[in-house]
Amino acid sequence: MQAVAHPSAPLQADAVVIGAGPVGLFQVFQLGLQGIAVHLIDALPRVGGQCDQLYPDKPIYDIPGIPVCTGQELVALLERQIAPFAPTRHLGQRVDALAVQEDGRFLLRTTAGASFLTKSVFIAAGVGAFMPRSLKVDGLAAFLGSQLLYHPADVSAARGHHVVVHGGDEAAVQAAIACVPAAASVTLLHRRDVFCAAPEPLAELQALRAAGRIHVTIGQITGVQQSPDGCLQALELTGPDGGHARLPLTLLLAYLGLTPRLGPIADWGLAMERKQLAVDPASFVTNVAGIYAVGDINSYPGKRKLILCGFHEATLAAFAEAERQAGQKLPLEYTTSSDRLQARLGVAGAA
Amino acid sequence: MQAVAHPSAPLQADAVVIGAGPVGLFQVFQLGLQGIAVHLIDALPRVGGQCDQLYPDKPIYDIPGIPVCTGQELVALLERQIAPFAPTRHLGQRVDALAVQEDGRFLLRTTAGASFLTKSVFIAAGVGAFMPRSLKVDGLAAFLGSQLLYHPADVSAARGHHVVVHGGDEAAVQAAIACVPAAASVTLLHRRDVFCAAPEPLAELQALRAAGRIHVTIGQITGVQQSPDGCLQALELTGPDGGHARLPLTLLLAYLGLTPRLGPIADWGLAMERKQLAVDPASFVTNVAGIYAVGDINSYPGKRKLILCGFHEATLAAFAEAERQAGQKLPLEYTTSSDRLQARLGVAGAA
Repeated sequence: MQAVAHPSAPLQADAVVIGAGPVGLFQVFQLGLQGIAVHLIDALPRVGGQCDQLYPDKPIYDIPGIPVCTGQELVALLERQIAPFAPTRHLGQRVDALAVQEDGRFLLRTTAGASFLTKSVFIAAGVGAFMPRSLKVDGLAAFLGSQLLYHPADVSAARGHHVVVHGGDEAAVQAAIACVPAAASVTLLHRRDVFCAAPEPLAELQALRAAGRIHVTIGQITGVQQSPDGCLQALELTGPDGGHARLPLTLLLAYLGLTPRLGPIADWGLAMERKQLAVDPASFVTNVAGIYAVGDINSYPGKRKLILCGFHEATLAAFAEAERQAGQKLPLEYTTSSDRLQARLGVAGAA
Repeated sequence: MQAVAHPSAPLQADAVVIGAGPVGLFQVFQLGLQGIAVHLIDALPRVGGQCDQLYPDKPIYDIPGIPVCTGQELVALLERQIAPFAPTRHLGQRVDALAVQEDGRFLLRTTAGASFLTKSVFIAAGVGAFMPRSLKVDGLAAFLGSQLLYHPADVSAARGHHVVVHGGDEAAVQAAIACVPAAASVTLLHRRDVFCAAPEPLAELQALRAAGRIHVTIGQITGVQQSPDGCLQALELTGPDGGHARLPLTLLLAYLGLTPRLGPIADWGLAMERKQLAVDPASFVTNVAGIYAVGDINSYPGKRKLILCGFHEATLAAFAEAERQAGQKLPLEYTTSSDRLQARLGVAGAA
């Protein structure tokens, strides 16, 4: 993900939620009930987090009151539930810096150059930000951002290039197809001649292979070759039979899947316990007042990494921050009976 | 509620859940996932607890993933969710005694005479057992169980009696109607001539009043009159105009609504904090190993009396007891991916 310079004044916020998985979405809901508007940030280009990335179509049986739903269905239900509180979304970007300010607020900056000056931060980052898996090949890292791009959202960089698209899933297949019109040549490189994608893009790949517009090469990258002026000019491959080959190129687009990484969160000075953020289970606050951690990323005695536990954590965190911002204890109100909560939900007079 | 003698041997159990509100039902689910079968006890004749008693038709907006549902709908969803674990139900009875045995198990006895020897107890009793509201009239308590019954489930006791049914809601109206065929006479006594019930029973009441089969008397009970042999023979009433009247009777059936009472739970030697059971938020265990408290009845730092928090509490309590019974730490498994959990749910191979 490339950082874009964006030196405008930071957005003033009451709350920033980092992570738009199910727990981050429910955090938006509970903050909304408390009258606190949210900026919602996620590294992925859409909401859903692990539910959307790891088990979009698999059944979940332990969400209370929902006998069965898929990951995507749960996300859709939560989207409906938080609709009254319409958070401002900042997707496809990762928070790469967080600093405490003198007035106790927090300055956040994202990889897309957005910045926020916020009273509170709710880290619902799950197992971390979903980041492109990278290639471990000597000499390749030097070309990152120039002749090597990981998971670019579009393939506009391919224009005029001899492109190698590396990967075997739907994202790789779609990228290879998308490169065809503008690239000088397109090679789809994968370790075996099996591609996992929906029938339609597979058929299109087949047609483009037959027409000679996409070349498929089977092999693993074992080395790189540079030109005298320091450009990447070929990949060294080992084939399935153990033989060696050389694949010339001017641009490498790698689609090796997304994998969650905790990333810079570990550098923000927050107390940690075995790679998790340590929290107080009365409020799920970290060791810094105003910064909360909810869901899979936190740790406290008895912690179980279950979505339904994250819902509870987000709820108590919202109460704690609402009381901190109000400077006083707040009474518990019920959505079933409170006119104030129903007005916030946009259902005033429904009961 | 009358106790029935039932001196059989206690049922052997791994877990007893006290309270069949939403949190008690989800406790059954989480214990089921852990492979622990449950005996489920509630004072009410059906499941649902406060959801069913206090807001059956009112909307709830804050169950995660359920944008809106009524209390009864939530109960129905939870019933579907726990169906694979079919708890043994003991409804319409209250646990009135709990004693720790020498082997660390617990002996429970209910008001219906059922008894259990169980390894663990999960108290999900909410605001307490829903008990009939009683009359505060000097001299009346002496007739409880003989000539005074509170909220009898059926009116078979009315046969041949001059019955006074006291109350103004649907239960009172239905009881008065049900008494007509077998009773010597039926008087429906309420403080005003307004009865709250569905149109059908109201129409039937109207017809029976017109036919002289039910007499409606308006007034409040201010005293009782006894016969020389100590029987209740009349109620002293004060009418809406302040006048006094005498209402002869041989049986009083009082339907003054149900109100939750903590009852004998306070006498079980469990640590309490302001009428709540104090628990450890890592496991929701009370001060007695093997006895857990979940939902509105418990207290811990940060506690909020919300259904969704009770779901979390029930989950960690189930894990804690499963580990205690197994004598070792248990790994976290997911319903989405675990063959073992899916087999328990009866959905093996669904994914």
